[in-house]
Amino acid sequence: MSAHYQELEARFRRLSLIGEAAGMLRWDMSVMMPDKSSAARGEQITALKLIAHETLSSNELADLLAAAEDTADVLDDWQTRNLQLMRRRWVHTTAVPADLLDAFTRTCMQTESVWRTARPDNDFGTILPHLETLLGLVRETATAKSEALGVPPYEALLDLYEPGGRTAQLDALFDDYAAFLPPFLDRVLERQSLRPQPRLPDGPFPQGRQEDLCRRMAEAVGFDFATGRLDATLHPFSGGIPEDSRITTRYDEADFTSALMGVLHETGHAMYERGRPADWRYQPVGDTPGLGMHESQSLMVEMQASRSRAFLDWAAPVMQSAFDGSGEGWSADNLYRLATQVARSFIRVDADEVTYPAHVILRYRLERAMIDGDLQPKDLPGAWQDQMKQLLAISPPDDRRGCLQDIHWYDGAWGYFPTYSLGAMAAAQLFASARKSDKDIEAGLGRGDFVPLMRWLRTNVHNLGARFTTNEILERATGRPLDPSAFKEHLKTRYLEEAQ
Amino acid sequence: MSAHYQELEARFRRLSLIGEAAGMLRWDMSVMMPDKSSAARGEQITALKLIAHETLSSNELADLLAAAEDTADVLDDWQTRNLQLMRRRWVHTTAVPADLLDAFTRTCMQTESVWRTARPDNDFGTILPHLETLLGLVRETATAKSEALGVPPYEALLDLYEPGGRTAQLDALFDDYAAFLPPFLDRVLERQSLRPQPRLPDGPFPQGRQEDLCRRMAEAVGFDFATGRLDATLHPFSGGIPEDSRITTRYDEADFTSALMGVLHETGHAMYERGRPADWRYQPVGDTPGLGMHESQSLMVEMQASRSRAFLDWAAPVMQSAFDGSGEGWSADNLYRLATQVARSFIRVDADEVTYPAHVILRYRLERAMIDGDLQPKDLPGAWQDQMKQLLAISPPDDRRGCLQDIHWYDGAWGYFPTYSLGAMAAAQLFASARKSDKDIEAGLGRGDFVPLMRWLRTNVHNLGARFTTNEILERATGRPLDPSAFKEHLKTRYLEEAQ
Repeated sequence: MSAHYQELEARFRRLSLIGEAAGMLRWDMSVMMPDKSSAARGEQITALKLIAHETLSSNELADLLAAAEDTADVLDDWQTRNLQLMRRRWVHTTAVPADLLDAFTRTCMQTESVWRTARPDNDFGTILPHLETLLGLVRETATAKSEALGVPPYEALLDLYEPGGRTAQLDALFDDYAAFLPPFLDRVLERQSLRPQPRLPDGPFPQGRQEDLCRRMAEAVGFDFATGRLDATLHPFSGGIPEDSRITTRYDEADFTSALMGVLHETGHAMYERGRPADWRYQPVGDTPGLGMHESQSLMVEMQASRSRAFLDWAAPVMQSAFDGSGEGWSADNLYRLATQVARSFIRVDADEVTYPAHVILRYRLERAMIDGDLQPKDLPGAWQDQMKQLLAISPPDDRRGCLQDIHWYDGAWGYFPTYSLGAMAAAQLFASARKSDKDIEAGLGRGDFVPLMRWLRTNVHNLGARFTTNEILERATGRPLDPSAFKEHLKTRYLEEAQ
Repeated sequence: MSAHYQELEARFRRLSLIGEAAGMLRWDMSVMMPDKSSAARGEQITALKLIAHETLSSNELADLLAAAEDTADVLDDWQTRNLQLMRRRWVHTTAVPADLLDAFTRTCMQTESVWRTARPDNDFGTILPHLETLLGLVRETATAKSEALGVPPYEALLDLYEPGGRTAQLDALFDDYAAFLPPFLDRVLERQSLRPQPRLPDGPFPQGRQEDLCRRMAEAVGFDFATGRLDATLHPFSGGIPEDSRITTRYDEADFTSALMGVLHETGHAMYERGRPADWRYQPVGDTPGLGMHESQSLMVEMQASRSRAFLDWAAPVMQSAFDGSGEGWSADNLYRLATQVARSFIRVDADEVTYPAHVILRYRLERAMIDGDLQPKDLPGAWQDQMKQLLAISPPDDRRGCLQDIHWYDGAWGYFPTYSLGAMAAAQLFASARKSDKDIEAGLGRGDFVPLMRWLRTNVHNLGARFTTNEILERATGRPLDPSAFKEHLKTRYLEEAQ
């Protein structure tokens, strides 16, 4: 190990700690801080981001990278990969000129703030000029990163969230699913219409009892409240650090399932954070190889495990007793049907796992067309309608339930949406291999025991950090890179009860 | 204004924001964080401290300071003062060699951790070698700062907390009080023994109701919960920023007065933070001129205002109704006697305002003797006994209730203790002038209205920030620098009912 490389590790360790501090300030902002204090908090977070940016874009760091790369033959495999990931971060940071970054950051804040009223007002006209300005800056950013990374503009944006992500892979995965979905969905909905309709068990569901149940279930997954917290927020998220996981959920006293499924989802994220290699705790190679893999770990717990029949057989009486409930609504049969109910719907965040990819594919196609200059923002509402008809055979009655529903584009997150469905597909692929390699994984879920599943994930996913790419990790764990077959098999089995 | 000065303001603004971020991490650590996560949090805070230290001790900053000082004639009065305070911070940061600072920081952490068990175990022997090592490093630090600041070693330590503080002033104030106290205390205790003994009103005092009362009282002082929080912690403190005050207290369900008085104290700190000049929000000149002044603002609210007969006449029925209380215990007479009860006692933090300065004078004399090399740590327990006998005519039965009771020395805070009593004296001096200049201040307290008092404090103290020294602010507001007369008058009036 060279002195240059060693110094780089020290600097990236500090960058990581600055990021953790900023993350903590954001957690507090969402969970604890009075709303009126947000401008002052924004100043603190901006200062930390600037310090990180200056550290990463300094001449010293560039010199260290070059020197370490010149003597990279002395590094072991993890160090070599770490150095590559350092370089990648450096490219993302330095590719964008400071004035473009400034304009982009300011425009994002402005557009997001306009979006906050445009969405409830169903007012696309007001936000359109902001979106046009923002898209112009996003395209400039994409061009700048495209040159630095040597990939097309859209892939240069995608790379921030899904390193090495390629549109060729996304197109293959998504076109396959788009062709699979319409006839499959028809069959699922037909079959669903023939069986008893699930119903929400009788309440009430007081928040305190919901919280107790959520804690009980998070602990079943492996969450340790001696090194973490669960709090209530408007938008559920998972934050904090491995030694101090902060998960949040939103409670609806009319329906306990949304908070509970939210907690199980965020617990999956937290378990992944906790499971990554301790030796590389503050280094890029100790991070996730991409957000698709991160999402696969939340969907593994929420979709693959917690909505499985095996788990719900165990969980049904636990849920019932949490609310002192009675009646048929608390049967495992009913709760399973409730957890696997499918519907054509307009809103992505409320969608089931069958239709969710359609929402993602739509966004991927539209954002890519906008980045490539093939779709103008003024034509977005119409293009949205067309895609919804094509993918789900429905037409949103307004933009509020169409192209205004998500914050992402208005907040500057372009190239992010695909990771949701990459995660869903990776989760299915990993879960199928896990179940095959250890029979006790599914049996464990049937007794509320996630230890066998988590043991497998630790070894095959968590512990690898970003030592390999997502596709490489999948190949090692499942024998092949990401493909849509396991996800489709999972859906067929769960929704059509076809044996795998 | 020179470009150099302007660049300095930008850098100190960033330093201030880093400090705020670290403060927020500490607040979370005390209030929200699971205990087991403290090592990881420590890494984050250390990283921010190191960044601040490097920023402040960089060659660039030294050059900017020198250049701005060369053209200081273009600066206005606030800027001139700001530049002086920047230089002072620079001196404190750069005076101590990095290896000494490292050794000091590590030794503090170690000694504090030993102290956490040595205190309950009443085991001075175990901590003695640690204290000896620590004192050695404190003395080295004092010597280094002494040369840089051009003042004697003890004053160089004091200067960190009380800029410009002089032992000549402390000796004069404290010797005067040490002479005043014994006969005065005898008279107070005699008089107290002749009147009905106060008693705690009948409970119960559930935590939720205590919290409601604390909020009600903090709001009466002027605290705005739209830009602040009140939480429960082991050790009450005031944190956060002007736009987001975070005060904490500790609830005892057997006695509501400790939490309430704690909240009133911390509210005084918070109101001072909120009242400082917005134009200098992130600059040294917008800060406090010293911790004595800061403490004066908490003691103003807690001791001068909230333990006054006028305020308690208004507050007694509010407190009673907060607990649906009944009986004589809730009379203003009883509650006032309770809030002004005096006793000789061993523990500083439990002491009343009459005997509190004795605890501080003792610590000041002993820490100064240790810094000057006139007292060895091994002789500390005996010296403590001697001073307690001399000042309060009592002998602590063990070191747990003697020289092991406070964290300060074991945590590296030498030169800090005097600020408590400087604050008490300044509070009395300011309050006497305030009452004289606006008759509605005392009348306001009688109707639970702190607006007149806070208006006077805003103008005469808060808004001045660190534009002037503590003594200069006192001179402008009261006609003279700090002296003990107002405090003694206050005590005579309150405890002997002598007319002023």
